[in-house]
Amino acid sequence: MAEHRVAVIGSGNWGSVAAKLIASNTITMPSFHDEVRMWVHEETLPDGSKLTDTINAKNENVRYLPGIKLGGDVIADPDLEHAVEGADMLVFVVPHQFVEDVCGKLVGKIGSGVEAISLIKGMEVKTEGPSMISKYITKMLGTSCCVLMGANIAQEIGMKRFSEATIGYNQDKKVARRWVELFTTDYFIVSAVQDVEGVELCGTLKNIVALAAGFVDGLDMGSNTKSAIMRIGLREMIAFSKLMFPSVKDNTFFESCGVADLITTCIGGRNRKIAEAYTRSNGTRSFSDLEEELLDGQKLQGVLTSNEVYDVLCHRKCKDQFPLFTKVHDICTGELLPSSIVEYSKFTNFEN
Amino acid sequence: MAEHRVAVIGSGNWGSVAAKLIASNTITMPSFHDEVRMWVHEETLPDGSKLTDTINAKNENVRYLPGIKLGGDVIADPDLEHAVEGADMLVFVVPHQFVEDVCGKLVGKIGSGVEAISLIKGMEVKTEGPSMISKYITKMLGTSCCVLMGANIAQEIGMKRFSEATIGYNQDKKVARRWVELFTTDYFIVSAVQDVEGVELCGTLKNIVALAAGFVDGLDMGSNTKSAIMRIGLREMIAFSKLMFPSVKDNTFFESCGVADLITTCIGGRNRKIAEAYTRSNGTRSFSDLEEELLDGQKLQGVLTSNEVYDVLCHRKCKDQFPLFTKVHDICTGELLPSSIVEYSKFTNFEN
Repeated sequence: MAEHRVAVIGSGNWGSVAAKLIASNTITMPSFHDEVRMWVHEETLPDGSKLTDTINAKNENVRYLPGIKLGGDVIADPDLEHAVEGADMLVFVVPHQFVEDVCGKLVGKIGSGVEAISLIKGMEVKTEGPSMISKYITKMLGTSCCVLMGANIAQEIGMKRFSEATIGYNQDKKVARRWVELFTTDYFIVSAVQDVEGVELCGTLKNIVALAAGFVDGLDMGSNTKSAIMRIGLREMIAFSKLMFPSVKDNTFFESCGVADLITTCIGGRNRKIAEAYTRSNGTRSFSDLEEELLDGQKLQGVLTSNEVYDVLCHRKCKDQFPLFTKVHDICTGELLPSSIVEYSKFTNFEN
Repeated sequence: MAEHRVAVIGSGNWGSVAAKLIASNTITMPSFHDEVRMWVHEETLPDGSKLTDTINAKNENVRYLPGIKLGGDVIADPDLEHAVEGADMLVFVVPHQFVEDVCGKLVGKIGSGVEAISLIKGMEVKTEGPSMISKYITKMLGTSCCVLMGANIAQEIGMKRFSEATIGYNQDKKVARRWVELFTTDYFIVSAVQDVEGVELCGTLKNIVALAAGFVDGLDMGSNTKSAIMRIGLREMIAFSKLMFPSVKDNTFFESCGVADLITTCIGGRNRKIAEAYTRSNGTRSFSDLEEELLDGQKLQGVLTSNEVYDVLCHRKCKDQFPLFTKVHDICTGELLPSSIVEYSKFTNFEN
């Protein structure tokens, strides 16, 4: 009867919420095993206990999603191979720099008929094109791979606040529908579009626009200007995605992964925040200073992506079609002042 | 040499800024007369002087756009017929309830070859369909009529803060281009799309979504939820516009008139503000109370539009395709609580 079994690979705040959402559904769906195994990169907590033990004892990820009960069917497992054993639906939700390592460990251990989905935002964009994480998983493990992106601040969804997400799929509508059913709850509405590339690129490119929005915030330009910059950014996200993959659909950007995630990221979000701080510092602080101070030395995703996308634009000789992406790059490198984010040539926009 | 002459009909804050933008361009364009006449509904100021005299003496609309110089070529004129005399490009920017009166006075006084553009937001939506103001102007005066909409808070544009707008035109690309050139400046970027109906409807329907955004703000749901509600609202704006006019294009909603104006309106704006206040009052204040208190007895545009759109949805038996518009109506009438704005049925969204 129960033909499907789900494993969640990753247990940060978003991974924990994903496991919670899924487990709230598997219990009501006869074709799914109730239990959802969640692979945890084991760590020792300050009190000396193991994170997995604590999650299983308290039914709560005290380290990455404190205060939210995950549901009794979520079982934390520190052993990756054991966690995925028997599972035919794999949810990838590790930080993107760990994908290679995780996939490497799973090579040859995934049976046929297994389906994957990636919730991982922030791919690398190489000069020859973006390194789609979904494609990497397919290449390494031989499974087909959907993606799920959207305006998804984990903490808010953990608190059951209404939200949406978008699944991008390749061919198999039936599999996409199964993923939709697995994630959808009363407060988490999921839709599906046949456009993996468009959906997956949204989650990466939005961070460049968030930097632009942060510059505008730092300039105290008001809401006309900010919404104009967000709109221009959205148009460049669409144009860049179509440049990379002509199959990308405009309508994908009306989904949660597009316009909604962009709005959330440009209102909150750390890319926006650091860009605002950089602008307000009036040249007294560098981007790397602010990253070190505010991000504990981590590199800001938007700045990395902006550099990578800029290389693609140079390589393809189409910088002038992407004035906002180009300006964000030039501001981040210090070649331009933040105020240049609102300088565009007249009459670029007649008939799009 | 100078073949075109522009008159601006209306002198509120947006009319005054429009005249300023236009006059900054006519002076540099040989095919335009420098002078821009602006029709002013005459009134007497507290000091006993006439508004037109003061505008012309100070080159500033002290009543509706204080602190902003209009440029010496803007000439205020209290006589409507005289203001439009010899003008072949008419900019309509009066409050929408005065359009009938103004057009009535101009009937038979507009020569052939005259072009019009409407900057007026907030049309009436009748059961048989929306009363497009552009169509009304065409019907009354025999001129073709474009529209200009966008994220345009007049005060911010008066201060030369970067902004965008969208012109919707019917057929004549050459005329559309002339309007684009007339309005575009370094800080005000205008694009044109061949979709009058789509552009014009944006300026009206966004107010319903702003009410929904206000309810979410009053519920303290966070940015995931707010961006999800704005996105659902945008989708319903598109669907409703296409239901009314199948010619409406999806891409119009990626322009300033669509997504950008929606963002501005859902972040600031009085529809949003009053909806938030209504929600926070927890049933102790009525909408009409709050309108009276905060709007000096004026009716809130979003509530009127919501009622009108609801009638259309009932008439066409398609309420269930517009859950957000329907809920906003039911919340405004008191049938539903504001919290219902985040209650949707699962699985409505598979493949759009």
